[in-house]
Amino acid sequence: MTTSDAVTSAPKRDPHDLPDVSGLVVGVLGGTGPQGKGLAYRLARAGQQVVIGSRAADRAEAVAAELGQGIRGTDNAGAARQSDIVIVAVPWEGHGATLESLRSELTGKIVVDCVNPLGFDKQGAYALKPKEGSAAQQAAALLPDSRVTAAFHHLSAVLLRDPEIDRIDTDVMVLGDDRTATDIVQALADRFPGMRGVYAGRLRNAHQVESLVANLISVNRRYKAHAGLRITDV
Amino acid sequence: MTTSDAVTSAPKRDPHDLPDVSGLVVGVLGGTGPQGKGLAYRLARAGQQVVIGSRAADRAEAVAAELGQGIRGTDNAGAARQSDIVIVAVPWEGHGATLESLRSELTGKIVVDCVNPLGFDKQGAYALKPKEGSAAQQAAALLPDSRVTAAFHHLSAVLLRDPEIDRIDTDVMVLGDDRTATDIVQALADRFPGMRGVYAGRLRNAHQVESLVANLISVNRRYKAHAGLRITDV
Repeated sequence: MTTSDAVTSAPKRDPHDLPDVSGLVVGVLGGTGPQGKGLAYRLARAGQQVVIGSRAADRAEAVAAELGQGIRGTDNAGAARQSDIVIVAVPWEGHGATLESLRSELTGKIVVDCVNPLGFDKQGAYALKPKEGSAAQQAAALLPDSRVTAAFHHLSAVLLRDPEIDRIDTDVMVLGDDRTATDIVQALADRFPGMRGVYAGRLRNAHQVESLVANLISVNRRYKAHAGLRITDV
Repeated sequence: MTTSDAVTSAPKRDPHDLPDVSGLVVGVLGGTGPQGKGLAYRLARAGQQVVIGSRAADRAEAVAAELGQGIRGTDNAGAARQSDIVIVAVPWEGHGATLESLRSELTGKIVVDCVNPLGFDKQGAYALKPKEGSAAQQAAALLPDSRVTAAFHHLSAVLLRDPEIDRIDTDVMVLGDDRTATDIVQALADRFPGMRGVYAGRLRNAHQVESLVANLISVNRRYKAHAGLRITDV
Protein backbone atom coordinates (compact mmCIF):
# COMPACT_ATOMS: atom_id res chain seq x y z
CA MET A 1 0.00 0.00 0.00
CA THR A 2 0.99 3.55 -0.50
CA THR A 3 -0.35 6.58 1.29
CA SER A 4 -0.48 8.50 -1.92
CA ASP A 5 -2.94 6.46 -3.94
CA ALA A 6 -5.87 8.21 -2.36
CA VAL A 7 -4.88 11.86 -2.71
CA THR A 8 -8.10 12.89 -4.41
CA SER A 9 -11.15 15.14 -4.07
CA ALA A 10 -10.24 18.71 -3.15
CA PRO A 11 -11.64 19.78 0.23
CA LYS A 12 -14.65 22.06 0.03
CA ARG A 13 -13.42 24.21 2.92
CA ASP A 14 -9.93 25.35 3.81
CA PRO A 15 -8.86 22.75 6.39
CA HIS A 16 -6.81 25.38 8.23
CA ASP A 17 -9.80 27.72 8.65
CA LEU A 18 -10.99 26.81 12.15
CA PRO A 19 -13.50 28.48 14.51
CA ASP A 20 -12.68 30.64 17.54
CA VAL A 21 -13.17 28.45 20.61
CA SER A 22 -11.65 30.78 23.19
CA GLY A 23 -15.03 31.43 24.83
CA LEU A 24 -16.06 27.79 25.23
CA VAL A 25 -16.03 26.02 28.59
CA VAL A 26 -14.10 22.75 28.60
CA GLY A 27 -14.93 19.96 31.02
CA VAL A 28 -12.48 17.19 31.81
CA LEU A 29 -14.05 13.96 33.09
CA GLY A 30 -11.50 12.03 35.11
CA GLY A 31 -9.78 15.36 35.63
CA THR A 32 -7.98 14.13 38.74
CA GLY A 33 -5.93 11.51 36.83
CA PRO A 34 -2.53 12.36 35.32
CA GLN A 35 -3.77 12.91 31.75
CA GLY A 36 -6.84 14.84 32.87
CA LYS A 37 -4.85 17.07 35.18
CA GLY A 38 -2.27 17.76 32.49
CA LEU A 39 -4.88 18.67 29.86
CA ALA A 40 -6.86 20.83 32.31
CA TYR A 41 -3.75 22.68 33.47
CA ARG A 42 -2.46 23.34 29.96
CA LEU A 43 -5.85 24.48 28.60
CA ALA A 44 -6.50 26.81 31.52
CA ARG A 45 -3.02 28.24 31.19
CA ALA A 46 -3.84 29.01 27.55
CA GLY A 47 -6.84 31.02 28.74
CA GLN A 48 -9.61 28.44 28.39
CA GLN A 49 -12.32 28.13 31.08
CA VAL A 50 -11.93 24.64 32.52
CA VAL A 51 -14.04 22.54 34.90
CA ILE A 52 -12.63 19.22 36.03
CA GLY A 53 -14.91 16.40 37.05
CA SER A 54 -14.31 13.37 39.23
CA ARG A 55 -16.51 10.74 40.86
CA ALA A 56 -16.16 12.69 44.11
CA ALA A 57 -16.74 16.46 43.90
CA ASP A 58 -14.46 17.21 46.87
CA ARG A 59 -11.58 15.40 45.20
CA ALA A 60 -12.11 17.43 42.00
CA GLU A 61 -12.26 20.64 44.02
CA ALA A 62 -9.00 19.80 45.77
CA VAL A 63 -7.22 19.03 42.48
CA ALA A 64 -8.65 22.19 40.90
CA ALA A 65 -7.21 24.23 43.78
CA GLU A 66 -3.86 22.47 43.35
CA LEU A 67 -3.81 23.22 39.60
CA GLY A 68 -4.80 26.89 40.00
CA GLN A 69 -5.29 28.87 36.76
CA GLY A 70 -8.95 29.49 37.64
CA ILE A 71 -9.86 25.84 37.17
CA ARG A 72 -13.05 24.73 38.94
CA GLY A 73 -13.83 21.24 40.21
CA THR A 74 -17.07 19.33 40.74
CA ASP A 75 -18.47 15.85 40.14
CA ASN A 76 -18.44 14.35 36.63
CA ALA A 77 -22.13 15.12 36.03
CA GLY A 78 -21.67 18.74 37.04
CA ALA A 79 -18.59 19.13 34.87
CA ALA A 80 -20.48 17.67 31.90
CA ARG A 81 -23.46 19.95 32.46
CA GLN A 82 -21.39 23.14 32.80
CA SER A 83 -19.23 22.57 29.69
CA ASP A 84 -19.52 23.05 25.95
CA ILE A 85 -16.77 20.55 25.15
CA VAL A 86 -16.20 17.53 27.39
CA ILE A 87 -12.88 15.68 27.35
CA VAL A 88 -13.12 12.07 28.53
CA ALA A 89 -9.92 11.21 30.39
CA VAL A 90 -11.18 8.44 32.67
CA PRO A 91 -9.38 5.11 32.98
CA TRP A 92 -10.42 2.59 30.31
CA GLU A 93 -11.82 0.30 32.99
CA GLY A 94 -14.47 2.83 33.96
CA HIS A 95 -15.03 4.29 30.49
CA GLY A 96 -18.28 2.65 29.46
CA ALA A 97 -20.02 2.87 32.84
CA THR A 98 -19.07 6.53 33.32
CA LEU A 99 -20.33 7.58 29.89
CA GLU A 100 -23.53 5.58 30.17
CA SER A 101 -24.34 7.32 33.46
CA LEU A 102 -23.82 10.77 31.87
CA ARG A 103 -25.88 10.32 28.73
CA SER A 104 -28.37 13.07 29.51
CA GLU A 105 -25.73 15.56 30.73
CA LEU A 106 -23.74 14.99 27.53
CA THR A 107 -26.67 15.38 25.13
CA GLY A 108 -25.77 17.84 22.38
CA LYS A 109 -22.24 18.34 23.67
CA ILE A 110 -18.98 17.79 21.86
CA VAL A 111 -17.29 14.84 23.52
CA VAL A 112 -13.54 14.35 23.04
CA ASP A 113 -12.41 10.86 23.91
CA CYS A 114 -8.68 10.58 24.71
CA VAL A 115 -8.74 7.14 26.32
CA ASN A 116 -6.23 4.49 25.23
CA PRO A 117 -7.36 0.93 25.98
CA LEU A 118 -4.10 -0.85 26.81
CA GLY A 119 -2.97 -3.91 28.67
CA PHE A 120 0.39 -4.29 30.41
CA ASP A 121 2.57 -7.29 31.12
CA LYS A 122 6.27 -7.82 31.66
CA GLN A 123 7.00 -7.10 27.96
CA GLY A 124 5.35 -3.70 28.26
CA ALA A 125 2.10 -2.33 26.84
CA TYR A 126 -0.17 -3.85 24.23
CA ALA A 127 -3.42 -2.82 22.55
CA LEU A 128 -6.77 -3.96 23.86
CA LYS A 129 -9.54 -4.13 21.27
CA PRO A 130 -12.91 -2.91 22.58
CA LYS A 131 -15.84 -4.81 21.10
CA GLU A 132 -17.12 -1.57 19.54
CA GLY A 133 -13.74 -1.20 17.76
CA SER A 134 -12.19 1.51 19.93
CA ALA A 135 -12.86 3.57 23.04
CA ALA A 136 -14.15 6.39 20.83
CA GLN A 137 -16.58 4.08 19.04
CA GLN A 138 -17.77 2.80 22.41
CA ALA A 139 -18.42 6.41 23.41
CA ALA A 140 -20.32 7.03 20.18
CA ALA A 141 -22.42 3.91 20.75
CA LEU A 142 -23.25 4.91 24.34
CA LEU A 143 -23.86 8.60 23.53
CA PRO A 144 -26.02 8.68 20.40
CA ASP A 145 -27.12 12.27 21.12
CA SER A 146 -23.59 13.66 21.60
CA ARG A 147 -21.03 14.68 18.99
CA VAL A 148 -18.23 12.25 19.70
CA THR A 149 -14.67 12.91 18.54
CA ALA A 150 -11.30 11.42 19.54
CA ALA A 151 -8.11 13.40 20.20
CA PHE A 152 -5.26 14.11 22.64
CA HIS A 153 -4.06 10.48 22.78
CA HIS A 154 -0.34 10.99 22.33
CA LEU A 155 0.52 13.69 24.85
CA SER A 156 2.86 13.16 27.75
CA ALA A 157 1.12 13.88 31.06
CA VAL A 158 4.52 14.79 32.50
CA LEU A 159 5.14 17.48 29.88
CA LEU A 160 1.56 18.79 30.08
CA ARG A 161 1.81 19.28 33.84
CA ASP A 162 5.33 20.75 33.97
CA PRO A 163 5.02 24.50 34.65
CA GLU A 164 8.56 25.10 33.36
CA ILE A 165 7.56 23.98 29.86
CA ASP A 166 6.06 26.70 27.65
CA ARG A 167 5.62 24.75 24.41
CA ILE A 168 4.98 21.12 23.58
CA ASP A 169 6.02 20.42 20.01
CA THR A 170 3.62 17.76 18.89
CA ASP A 171 0.50 17.36 16.79
CA VAL A 172 -2.89 16.20 17.96
CA MET A 173 -4.70 13.76 15.67
CA VAL A 174 -8.41 14.61 15.72
CA LEU A 175 -10.91 12.03 14.56
CA GLY A 176 -14.64 12.15 14.09
CA ASP A 177 -17.51 11.89 11.64
CA ASP A 178 -18.91 15.40 12.24
CA ARG A 179 -16.84 18.06 10.50
CA THR A 180 -18.09 20.95 12.65
CA ALA A 181 -17.17 19.04 15.81
CA THR A 182 -13.71 18.00 14.58
CA ASP A 183 -13.02 21.59 13.48
CA ILE A 184 -13.83 22.80 17.01
CA VAL A 185 -11.60 20.14 18.59
CA GLN A 186 -8.77 21.00 16.20
CA ALA A 187 -9.13 24.63 17.21
CA LEU A 188 -8.99 23.57 20.86
CA ALA A 189 -5.74 21.66 20.22
CA ASP A 190 -4.35 24.76 18.53
CA ARG A 191 -4.74 26.60 21.85
CA PHE A 192 -1.83 24.59 23.33
CA PRO A 193 1.42 26.40 22.45
CA GLY A 194 3.42 24.18 20.06
CA MET A 195 0.52 21.94 19.13
CA ARG A 196 -1.64 21.68 16.06
CA GLY A 197 -4.92 19.85 15.72
CA VAL A 198 -4.77 17.78 12.54
CA TYR A 199 -7.81 15.98 11.16
CA ALA A 200 -6.89 12.30 10.91
CA GLY A 201 -9.97 10.39 9.88
CA ARG A 202 -13.29 8.98 10.96
CA LEU A 203 -14.05 7.30 14.27
CA ARG A 204 -13.84 3.87 12.64
CA ASN A 205 -10.09 4.53 12.35
CA ALA A 206 -9.64 5.47 16.04
CA HIS A 207 -8.38 2.11 17.30
CA GLN A 208 -4.93 2.44 15.78
CA VAL A 209 -4.57 6.01 17.02
CA GLU A 210 -5.54 4.97 20.55
CA SER A 211 -3.31 1.91 20.61
CA LEU A 212 -0.29 3.64 19.09
CA VAL A 213 0.37 4.76 22.67
CA ALA A 214 1.76 1.26 23.25
CA ASN A 215 4.41 2.06 20.64
CA LEU A 216 5.16 5.45 22.15
CA ILE A 217 5.69 3.73 25.50
CA SER A 218 8.27 1.48 23.80
CA VAL A 219 9.92 4.56 22.31
CA ASN A 220 9.98 6.23 25.73
CA ARG A 221 11.61 3.20 27.30
CA ARG A 222 14.25 2.76 24.64
CA TYR A 223 15.20 6.43 24.31
CA LYS A 224 14.30 7.71 27.79
CA ALA A 225 12.02 10.23 26.09
CA HIS A 226 8.56 11.73 26.31
CA ALA A 227 7.79 10.97 22.67
CA GLY A 228 5.07 12.65 20.65
CA LEU A 229 4.18 12.80 16.97
CA ARG A 230 4.41 15.44 14.29
CA ILE A 231 2.61 15.00 11.00
CA THR A 232 4.87 16.10 8.16
CA ASP A 233 3.84 17.88 4.95
CA VAL A 234 0.74 19.42 6.62
CA MET B 1 -3.55 6.48 30.16
CA THR B 2 -0.40 8.49 29.87
CA THR B 3 2.63 7.73 27.79
CA SER B 4 4.89 8.69 30.62
CA ASP B 5 3.97 6.16 33.25
CA ALA B 6 6.28 3.58 31.76
CA VAL B 7 9.48 5.53 31.34
CA THR B 8 11.59 3.11 33.30
CA SER B 9 14.62 0.83 33.03
CA ALA B 10 17.65 2.48 31.41
CA PRO B 11 18.64 0.88 28.08
CA LYS B 12 21.67 -1.38 28.27
CA ARG B 13 23.01 -0.13 24.92
CA ASP B 14 22.99 3.35 23.41
CA PRO B 15 19.90 3.23 21.18
CA HIS B 16 21.58 5.57 18.69
CA ASP B 17 24.61 3.30 18.25
CA LEU B 18 23.67 1.36 15.11
CA PRO B 19 25.70 -0.96 12.87
CA ASP B 20 27.14 -0.11 9.43
CA VAL B 21 24.82 -1.65 6.86
CA SER B 22 26.29 -0.02 3.76
CA GLY B 23 27.69 -3.32 2.47
CA LEU B 24 24.50 -5.34 2.80
CA VAL B 25 22.40 -6.35 -0.20
CA VAL B 26 18.72 -5.41 0.08
CA GLY B 27 16.03 -7.36 -1.75
CA VAL B 28 12.57 -5.93 -2.35
CA LEU B 29 9.81 -8.49 -2.87
CA GLY B 30 7.00 -6.93 -4.83
CA GLY B 31 9.57 -4.50 -6.12
CA THR B 32 7.50 -3.63 -9.16
CA GLY B 33 4.65 -2.07 -7.14
CA PRO B 34 4.63 1.62 -6.20
CA GLN B 35 5.96 1.21 -2.65
CA GLY B 36 8.55 -1.39 -3.68
CA LYS B 37 9.79 0.74 -6.56
CA GLY B 38 10.03 3.80 -4.35
CA LEU B 39 11.98 2.01 -1.62
CA ALA B 40 14.32 0.32 -4.13
CA TYR B 41 15.00 3.58 -5.93
CA ARG B 42 15.67 5.57 -2.78
CA LEU B 43 17.91 2.90 -1.21
CA ALA B 44 19.95 2.44 -4.37
CA ARG B 45 20.31 6.18 -4.72
CA ALA B 46 21.75 6.22 -1.18
CA GLY B 47 24.40 3.72 -2.31
CA GLN B 48 22.81 0.44 -1.20
CA GLN B 49 22.98 -2.65 -3.44
CA VAL B 50 19.39 -3.49 -4.34
CA VAL B 51 17.72 -6.45 -6.05
CA ILE B 52 14.03 -6.20 -6.79
CA GLY B 53 11.90 -9.31 -7.04
CA SER B 54 8.59 -9.92 -8.74
CA ARG B 55 6.53 -12.97 -9.61
CA ALA B 56 7.88 -12.67 -13.17
CA ALA B 57 11.63 -12.16 -13.50
CA ASP B 58 11.32 -10.28 -16.81
CA ARG B 59 8.95 -7.77 -15.25
CA ALA B 60 11.43 -7.18 -12.39
CA GLU B 61 14.27 -6.77 -14.89
CA ALA B 62 12.28 -4.20 -16.85
CA VAL B 63 11.45 -2.19 -13.73
CA ALA B 64 15.07 -2.41 -12.54
CA ALA B 65 16.20 -0.98 -15.86
CA GLU B 66 13.60 1.80 -15.58
CA LEU B 67 14.77 2.67 -12.03
CA GLY B 68 18.50 2.67 -12.90
CA GLN B 69 20.91 3.30 -9.99
CA GLY B 70 22.47 -0.16 -10.50
CA ILE B 71 19.33 -1.96 -9.34
CA ARG B 72 19.00 -5.57 -10.48
CA GLY B 73 15.78 -7.48 -11.07
CA THR B 74 14.85 -11.15 -10.85
CA ASP B 75 12.04 -13.35 -9.51
CA ASN B 76 11.05 -13.14 -5.84
CA ALA B 77 12.91 -16.34 -4.93
CA GLY B 78 16.11 -15.09 -6.57
CA ALA B 79 15.84 -11.70 -4.89
CA ALA B 80 15.37 -13.37 -1.50
CA ARG B 81 18.35 -15.68 -2.07
CA GLN B 82 20.72 -12.91 -3.17
CA SER B 83 19.92 -10.51 -0.32
CA ASP B 84 20.92 -10.03 3.31
CA ILE B 85 17.84 -7.97 4.15
CA VAL B 86 14.54 -8.63 2.39
CA ILE B 87 11.80 -5.99 2.32
CA VAL B 88 8.31 -7.40 1.79
CA ALA B 89 6.32 -4.89 -0.28
CA VAL B 90 3.80 -7.22 -1.90
CA PRO B 91 0.05 -6.49 -1.87
CA TRP B 92 -1.68 -7.72 1.30
CA GLU B 93 -3.79 -10.09 -0.78
CA GLY B 94 -0.71 -12.08 -1.83
CA HIS B 95 1.27 -11.64 1.39
CA GLY B 96 0.78 -15.00 3.08
CA ALA B 97 1.10 -17.15 -0.03
CA THR B 98 4.23 -15.34 -1.24
CA LEU B 99 6.02 -15.65 2.09
CA GLU B 100 5.02 -19.28 2.55
CA SER B 101 6.50 -20.12 -0.85
CA LEU B 102 9.82 -18.44 0.05
CA ARG B 103 10.38 -19.98 3.48
CA SER B 104 13.63 -21.73 2.57
CA GLU B 105 15.07 -18.76 0.62
CA LEU B 106 14.33 -16.49 3.60
CA THR B 107 15.87 -18.76 6.24
CA GLY B 108 18.28 -16.77 8.42
CA LYS B 109 17.54 -13.50 6.64
CA ILE B 110 16.30 -10.26 8.10
CA VAL B 111 12.79 -9.75 6.74
CA VAL B 112 11.28 -6.24 6.82
CA ASP B 113 7.52 -6.27 6.41
CA CYS B 114 6.07 -2.96 5.22
CA VAL B 115 2.63 -4.21 4.23
CA ASN B 116 -0.50 -2.36 5.42
CA PRO B 117 -3.63 -4.53 5.42
CA LEU B 118 -6.37 -2.07 4.49
CA GLY B 119 -9.83 -2.15 3.00
CA PHE B 120 -11.39 0.64 0.98
CA ASP B 121 -14.97 1.80 0.52
CA LYS B 122 -16.62 5.07 -0.39
CA GLN B 123 -15.70 6.55 3.03
CA GLY B 124 -12.02 5.87 2.41
CA ALA B 125 -9.60 3.39 3.93
CA TYR B 126 -10.05 1.26 7.03
CA ALA B 127 -7.92 -1.25 8.90
CA LEU B 128 -8.16 -4.97 8.22
CA LYS B 129 -7.19 -7.20 11.14
CA PRO B 130 -5.20 -10.28 10.06
CA LYS B 131 -5.96 -13.33 12.19
CA GLU B 132 -2.33 -13.42 13.33
CA GLY B 133 -2.76 -9.81 14.59
CA SER B 134 -0.89 -7.97 11.83
CA ALA B 135 0.87 -8.54 8.52
CA ALA B 136 4.19 -8.64 10.39
CA GLN B 137 2.94 -11.27 12.82
CA GLN B 138 1.64 -13.30 9.89
CA ALA B 139 5.14 -13.10 8.38
CA ALA B 140 6.68 -14.20 11.68
CA ALA B 141 4.28 -17.14 11.90
CA LEU B 142 5.02 -18.24 8.32
CA LEU B 143 8.80 -17.68 8.57
CA PRO B 144 9.90 -19.17 11.91
CA ASP B 145 13.53 -19.36 10.74
CA SER B 146 13.75 -15.71 9.59
CA ARG B 147 14.30 -12.58 11.67
CA VAL B 148 11.09 -10.70 11.03
CA THR B 149 10.80 -6.96 11.61
CA ALA B 150 8.27 -4.33 10.47
CA ALA B 151 9.13 -0.90 9.10
CA PHE B 152 8.65 1.60 6.24
CA HIS B 153 4.85 1.73 6.56
CA HIS B 154 4.28 5.47 6.46
CA LEU B 155 6.28 6.60 3.44
CA SER B 156 4.74 8.20 0.41
CA ALA B 157 5.52 6.20 -2.72
CA VAL B 158 5.20 9.42 -4.71
CA LEU B 159 7.89 11.19 -2.68
CA LEU B 160 10.18 8.13 -2.65
CA ARG B 161 10.10 7.86 -6.42
CA ASP B 162 10.44 11.58 -7.22
CA PRO B 163 14.00 12.19 -8.50
CA GLU B 164 13.69 15.93 -7.76
CA ILE B 165 13.35 15.25 -4.03
CA ASP B 166 16.63 14.93 -2.13
CA ARG B 167 15.33 14.53 1.42
CA ILE B 168 12.18 13.05 2.92
CA ASP B 169 11.65 14.46 6.39
CA THR B 170 9.96 11.62 8.21
CA ASP B 171 10.76 8.92 10.72
CA VAL B 172 10.53 5.19 10.18
CA MET B 173 9.03 3.20 13.06
CA VAL B 174 10.93 -0.09 13.32
CA LEU B 175 9.34 -3.00 15.19
CA GLY B 176 10.61 -6.41 16.09
CA ASP B 177 11.49 -8.81 18.88
CA ASP B 178 15.17 -9.28 17.87
CA ARG B 179 17.30 -6.29 18.89
CA THR B 180 20.13 -7.05 16.47
CA ALA B 181 17.68 -7.21 13.58
CA THR B 182 15.82 -4.01 14.54
CA ASP B 183 19.16 -2.19 14.93
CA ILE B 184 20.10 -3.23 11.38
CA VAL B 185 16.74 -2.10 9.98
CA GLN B 186 17.00 1.22 11.85
CA ALA B 187 20.44 1.71 10.29
CA LEU B 188 18.95 0.95 6.88
CA ALA B 189 16.26 3.60 7.43
CA ASP B 190 18.99 6.06 8.40
CA ARG B 191 20.44 5.65 4.88
CA PHE B 192 17.51 7.60 3.41
CA PRO B 193 18.35 11.32 3.57
CA GLY B 194 15.98 13.02 6.03
CA MET B 195 14.82 9.79 7.66
CA ARG B 196 15.58 8.19 10.98
CA GLY B 197 14.86 4.64 12.02
CA VAL B 198 13.24 4.76 15.46
CA TYR B 199 12.62 1.61 17.49
CA ALA B 200 8.87 1.51 18.21
CA GLY B 201 8.10 -1.77 19.92
CA ARG B 202 7.60 -5.47 19.52
CA LEU B 203 5.83 -7.20 16.64
CA ARG B 204 2.73 -7.65 18.77
CA ASN B 205 2.28 -3.88 18.48
CA ALA B 206 2.59 -3.82 14.67
CA HIS B 207 -1.14 -3.74 13.83
CA GLN B 208 -1.66 -0.12 14.85
CA VAL B 209 1.47 0.98 12.99
CA GLU B 210 0.34 -0.80 9.84
CA SER B 211 -3.23 0.46 10.00
CA LEU B 212 -2.28 4.06 10.83
CA VAL B 213 -1.86 4.38 7.07
CA ALA B 214 -5.66 4.64 6.90
CA ASN B 215 -5.38 7.82 8.99
CA LEU B 216 -2.56 9.20 6.86
CA ILE B 217 -4.75 8.68 3.81
CA SER B 218 -7.43 10.81 5.54
CA VAL B 219 -4.81 13.45 6.28
CA ASN B 220 -3.68 13.39 2.64
CA ARG B 221 -7.23 13.86 1.41
CA ARG B 222 -8.08 16.69 3.77
CA TYR B 223 -4.84 18.65 3.36
CA LYS B 224 -3.80 17.56 -0.15
CA ALA B 225 -0.52 16.37 1.37
CA HIS B 226 1.87 13.45 1.35
CA ALA B 227 1.83 13.10 5.12
CA GLY B 228 4.47 11.32 7.14
CA LEU B 229 5.33 11.12 10.84
CA ARG B 230 8.10 12.52 13.01
CA ILE B 231 8.63 11.24 16.51
CA THR B 232 9.34 14.16 18.83
CA ASP B 233 11.73 14.21 21.81
CA VAL B 234 13.92 11.41 20.32
